[in-house]
Amino acid sequence: MVDDPVRQALREFTKERDWSQFHTPENLAKSITIEAAELLECFQWGQQADTQAVTEELADVLTYCLLLADRIGVDPGAIVLDKLEKTRAKYPVEKAHGSSVKYDRL
Amino acid sequence: MVDDPVRQALREFTKERDWSQFHTPENLAKSITIEAAELLECFQWGQQADTQAVTEELADVLTYCLLLADRIGVDPGAIVLDKLEKTRAKYPVEKAHGSSVKYDRL
Amino acid sequence: MVDDPVRQALREFTKERDWSQFHTPENLAKSITIEAAELLECFQWGQQADTQAVTEELADVLTYCLLLADRIGVDPGAIVLDKLEKTRAKYPVEKAHGSSVKYDRL
Amino acid sequence: MVDDPVRQALREFTKERDWSQFHTPENLAKSITIEAAELLECFQWGQQADTQAVTEELADVLTYCLLLADRIGVDPGAIVLDKLEKTRAKYPVEKAHGSSVKYDRL
Repeated sequence: MVDDPVRQALREFTKERDWSQFHTPENLAKSITIEAAELLECFQWGQQADTQAVTEELADVLTYCLLLADRIGVDPGAIVLDKLEKTRAKYPVEKAHGSSVKYDRL
Repeated sequence: MVDDPVRQALREFTKERDWSQFHTPENLAKSITIEAAELLECFQWGQQADTQAVTEELADVLTYCLLLADRIGVDPGAIVLDKLEKTRAKYPVEKAHGSSVKYDRL
Repeated sequence: MVDDPVRQALREFTKERDWSQFHTPENLAKSITIEAAELLECFQWGQQADTQAVTEELADVLTYCLLLADRIGVDPGAIVLDKLEKTRAKYPVEKAHGSSVKYDRL
Repeated sequence: MVDDPVRQALREFTKERDWSQFHTPENLAKSITIEAAELLECFQWGQQADTQAVTEELADVLTYCLLLADRIGVDPGAIVLDKLEKTRAKYPVEKAHGSSVKYDRL
């Protein structure tokens, strides 16, 4: 996915502004959390939310996630699939079907 | 990106477990924030962190982000590029180069 | 602490605005997280932060914490002391002195 | 409130373990956010939550808030009251009564 146009555009955006100096893994982890909470704010008082606002905040979380993946040198799609295999093992269909109970209490 | 294998795998994982009933936009926004904070916990007391732990927590954040994108019917890559255009306008290179100052104080 | 003037002032503020209807434990938990992330934003790109901004964001987190304590009927000071006893047991001085290692790895 | 027994107990707990070295304002802001998200996790999939778990997570958030207040030298009760006055001005009763709309849209 090195030639992924989205990640390439983010790299150019960062390079143009010389912002990689600020994008330490720690700062990106803080930024992901800050943007996630802005997404959560769309739902602060209830389930209804403005889709445009949700979309933009989700884009911000995703942007910092892609920047962190780049910074630590991992492929976003690959790590999601790797983690999914571990989650499959923790939540076998026969036990987890229709349940939101955490694996350690399944 | 409908045939994106990663998003397809997440859809199958969710369907097998009948978990879409729990995946309301609000619950996914909470989940993204919860996982983001677990990622942040890797850096709670300093800049050094275990790369394997960071990778897995980042995968969890990305997973819930992809589930929310699916739930609200947006393409993850497209919304990141759309938002990037807005951010380019808020942070013009000549003003933002080498600076971490927020746009409203640039 | 029922006559704690701070908590009393928060109760009056909420009652005057008829906001208790919005202050479900879930909404207050979301609000605490949202305000915590605004506090974190003061440190997004480094250790230096504006003390006035930090103070105001900390006040927001504390405010929602006191509202949640009221809502679930617990005394803020008492629950902090109760938890401190449990933490003392998890982090005995001889093991934890000068270390930031989590109890499960001590 | 220098002689507040709760804050005094936290100071002794920290001193015994020589943990003040880890309690920079930035690390405490991260810790408040991390604990806030653990509180939120009690409500990840719905409004119902275990009161004991909520109480303990709330205690953790409050604990780090008190440690940060101590670190930056502010009185927790005083800053909550100061902020409440500003919030009263932003949300006048006649405008905000029964509404969860943010002040900038009131």
